[in-house]
Amino acid sequence: MRLTLWTDYALRTLMYVGVNDGRLATIAEISAAFGVSKAHLMKVVNKLARLGYLETVRGKNGGIKLGRPPAAIGVGAVVRDTEEELAVMGCLSDSSFCPLDGCCVLKHALGEASLAFLRVLDRYTLADLLAPREALAAAIGAF
Amino acid sequence: MRLTLWTDYALRTLMYVGVNDGRLATIAEISAAFGVSKAHLMKVVNKLARLGYLETVRGKNGGIKLGRPPAAIGVGAVVRDTEEELAVMGCLSDSSFCPLDGCCVLKHALGEASLAFLRVLDRYTLADLLAPREALAAAIGAF
Repeated sequence: MRLTLWTDYALRTLMYVGVNDGRLATIAEISAAFGVSKAHLMKVVNKLARLGYLETVRGKNGGIKLGRPPAAIGVGAVVRDTEEELAVMGCLSDSSFCPLDGCCVLKHALGEASLAFLRVLDRYTLADLLAPREALAAAIGAF
Repeated sequence: MRLTLWTDYALRTLMYVGVNDGRLATIAEISAAFGVSKAHLMKVVNKLARLGYLETVRGKNGGIKLGRPPAAIGVGAVVRDTEEELAVMGCLSDSSFCPLDGCCVLKHALGEASLAFLRVLDRYTLADLLAPREALAAAIGAF
């Protein structure tokens, strides 16, 4: 039960860009800070920009900044927007997955459990993740 | 964020065997009922037997029955026992996964969310899943 790398990179990119508030971050920096692929990060950044979480500034001195204030970026919302497979079992996305569909308490329990997972994340915003800003900046090598 | 097929098959196998309480079920039947691979099911049944959830009876008229009463089989426990990757992000199983480890509120939030997921499942036992027994038997083609 692992979130996709897509969601992982999205959350860490938002944290990196948020810690660097006031200056433009670059994909090269984020890639170096986390030791992850630039090509994947580029796709993630493009998606986050389309969704309004990031804003990209083109040009020689361009880069990435947050598209909204950190307090307006919910962790649960980011996971819902980036995770392609939120259905923890096939039945939650496809009612023809299993003959038990329609009388299955397990399906109900799994749906309830998934909602509990997301509701915990809904209690956190990027502002909460950025609270230990100095420690994060030191760990991340931010400028 | 999908549970492995291993966990999926484990839960559905326990439901099938539970619905067939009083007679021995076979891997061939379970495979046919759910349209899943016999080879995979065999491995899952062996693991569930090793864990005490199932009991296998060898021989020509052999088969599978529950190793414990349904009310003593917790859904959360089965998921914990069968899911190989409960860490929804790499940091939850490997502290060297990310430089933010040690000051990361996200890691804390993801841990809390995962626990909330499992705690919902801890409220259900196989007995709860088997409550709509007649509908399940009809859907599953049980004897």
